[in-house]
Amino acid sequence: MTDPAWQQPIRPPSQPHRQRALARQVLLTKPPGSLGQLESVAVTLAALQHSDSPDVDPIRIAVFAADHGVCDEGISAFPQAVTGQMIANFAAGGAAISVLARQLQAGLEVINLGTVTPAPLSDGVIDAAIAPGTANLARQPAMTSPQLQAALATGDRAAARAAEAGSRLFIGGEMGIGNTTSASAMACALLEQPPTALTGPGTGLDADGVAHKIAVIEQALQRHGQDREPLAVLGSLGGFEIAALAGAFIGCAVRGIPVLVDGFIVSVAALAAVRLRPELHDWLLFAHHSLEPGHMAVLTALDARPLLALHMRLGEGSGAAVAAPLLRSACALHNQMATFADAGVSGASE
Amino acid sequence: MTDPAWQQPIRPPSQPHRQRALARQVLLTKPPGSLGQLESVAVTLAALQHSDSPDVDPIRIAVFAADHGVCDEGISAFPQAVTGQMIANFAAGGAAISVLARQLQAGLEVINLGTVTPAPLSDGVIDAAIAPGTANLARQPAMTSPQLQAALATGDRAAARAAEAGSRLFIGGEMGIGNTTSASAMACALLEQPPTALTGPGTGLDADGVAHKIAVIEQALQRHGQDREPLAVLGSLGGFEIAALAGAFIGCAVRGIPVLVDGFIVSVAALAAVRLRPELHDWLLFAHHSLEPGHMAVLTALDARPLLALHMRLGEGSGAAVAAPLLRSACALHNQMATFADAGVSGASE
Repeated sequence: MTDPAWQQPIRPPSQPHRQRALARQVLLTKPPGSLGQLESVAVTLAALQHSDSPDVDPIRIAVFAADHGVCDEGISAFPQAVTGQMIANFAAGGAAISVLARQLQAGLEVINLGTVTPAPLSDGVIDAAIAPGTANLARQPAMTSPQLQAALATGDRAAARAAEAGSRLFIGGEMGIGNTTSASAMACALLEQPPTALTGPGTGLDADGVAHKIAVIEQALQRHGQDREPLAVLGSLGGFEIAALAGAFIGCAVRGIPVLVDGFIVSVAALAAVRLRPELHDWLLFAHHSLEPGHMAVLTALDARPLLALHMRLGEGSGAAVAAPLLRSACALHNQMATFADAGVSGASE
Repeated sequence: MTDPAWQQPIRPPSQPHRQRALARQVLLTKPPGSLGQLESVAVTLAALQHSDSPDVDPIRIAVFAADHGVCDEGISAFPQAVTGQMIANFAAGGAAISVLARQLQAGLEVINLGTVTPAPLSDGVIDAAIAPGTANLARQPAMTSPQLQAALATGDRAAARAAEAGSRLFIGGEMGIGNTTSASAMACALLEQPPTALTGPGTGLDADGVAHKIAVIEQALQRHGQDREPLAVLGSLGGFEIAALAGAFIGCAVRGIPVLVDGFIVSVAALAAVRLRPELHDWLLFAHHSLEPGHMAVLTALDARPLLALHMRLGEGSGAAVAAPLLRSACALHNQMATFADAGVSGASE
């Protein structure tokens, strides 16, 4: 039997391409370093894509959706039926990520890993239901080991489809009422921090709601927070969509596709995936710093320099989709600007 | 004789459109406020454009270029000939702003207000030369009163052309070796702060170079830093391109075109223009926080919330051009997302 997808080898970034990209940036008609983070983004993409002309198009956006048993504890401002309703909204084109994908001319796929209220079958939705949501992580492991493997494999298949479509950038999004509770619990276990430090309002809890959410996460961590091995954390505290994201990101790195990481929940999935496969880290670019309080701790642990800080906290991959044009600009500047020599422009003195 | 362009009336933003835009944001299928700054941008544009469907296209980019007599004091890392050379590079399509304008499908015009080395005449360059650069502001006023009026009027004509082209967003860029010295001196005079607080490396001075630049600005402020009236500051310490930007921004507001403000130098032009015409403030959106140390003080004085902080410090309008897709995303989300009612999605409880 072959190894599971998340154990396949990950190709290292190309040092020759990185060096050539760094050398080219110095020749372009601008003060050295004056494009700031856009320069490092272009250099990183050149090294990852083994290309002297880095390019992020075509962009693939995959939104993973699933329900969470921990909603039984009353930890969300929204009813659980919203997960299924939003899957329909993604497919119908009315959600934020639908609008942004159209604007980017990016391929958008929606993968349903299991909802309490069955989502309507629709052309735009891939049915990969594992169960009608996870178990209640406050009282038992969120998923069984076979369910975890199924979720990881579902993510890997999304990466395989992205590779087949020739995608040069992958954005993973998520939808799942209750999933900031799961992500916060995972972050606490992976970073060995208390829930008070990493728990926030999610889609809109008030102070009492956040206090209750912290208590639920404390209960979950007491039950199964001691095993900090990443697969154990994913299985006991995760969600189907979070595990799928982890599988997708590793699958993208295995296939040579850079990943633009979205907000808090996606960053937690990325953290778990990097703990599983440290070589993945090179393949992750970070879109934004969201308002969710645990996000900064996760970004710091990932040594991330996110591109945006627009106070977004929507999920769905929306922050990454909003940041994607910055990568396009970085690539266009790298590839198309004239050099000092070509343009007959004098360089700096000394 | 009619009043100069910068004294024409400025239409106030529409409160009914602002209220309707705010109300619509709450109905869209997302947690309230979860699009962060993209929500406030869409609401602001709706009010400015008196439209229920805010839109920034077509975008007009105007780059104003001119030389600075203060270069005689040795305050730049680049030779003064670069201003004219870069005008040619803008027109030939090889500069950062040329690449970004193409990518944005934005109209780009380059306005030459006077260089030491004559810029080659080219289809893409508007010749509006006032003199071969300003006088040396460390030793005399940078420009005469007629020269200042000519620069303001040149900016206004760029705004008029933008209006004629149906532009719904205006980006002003600048090019002028030595112009961070001029902008820093202006910021010191307008904000009553010492040059040590607001002077930086510009395109790439080392520590000794910055110390010398500070001494030059101190000399300039001693000579003519007492009159803090904005036209006096523009005339004695400004540059032709900086005055043109101020004129262009007021001209845009007069004609109902929102402005996306670029980096340090453009922000100083905006500050002078707002001191001249406080109603202009409503019409300014701010693209980014650059690395130049004086920029934060100017942004704070303008009560600005810039969209990006990518450590850019290139000028040319490049930071604003990189930020422009964020405004497009904000408008698309506002205009195209489904409401909870339309999509059959349940709202938050309570």
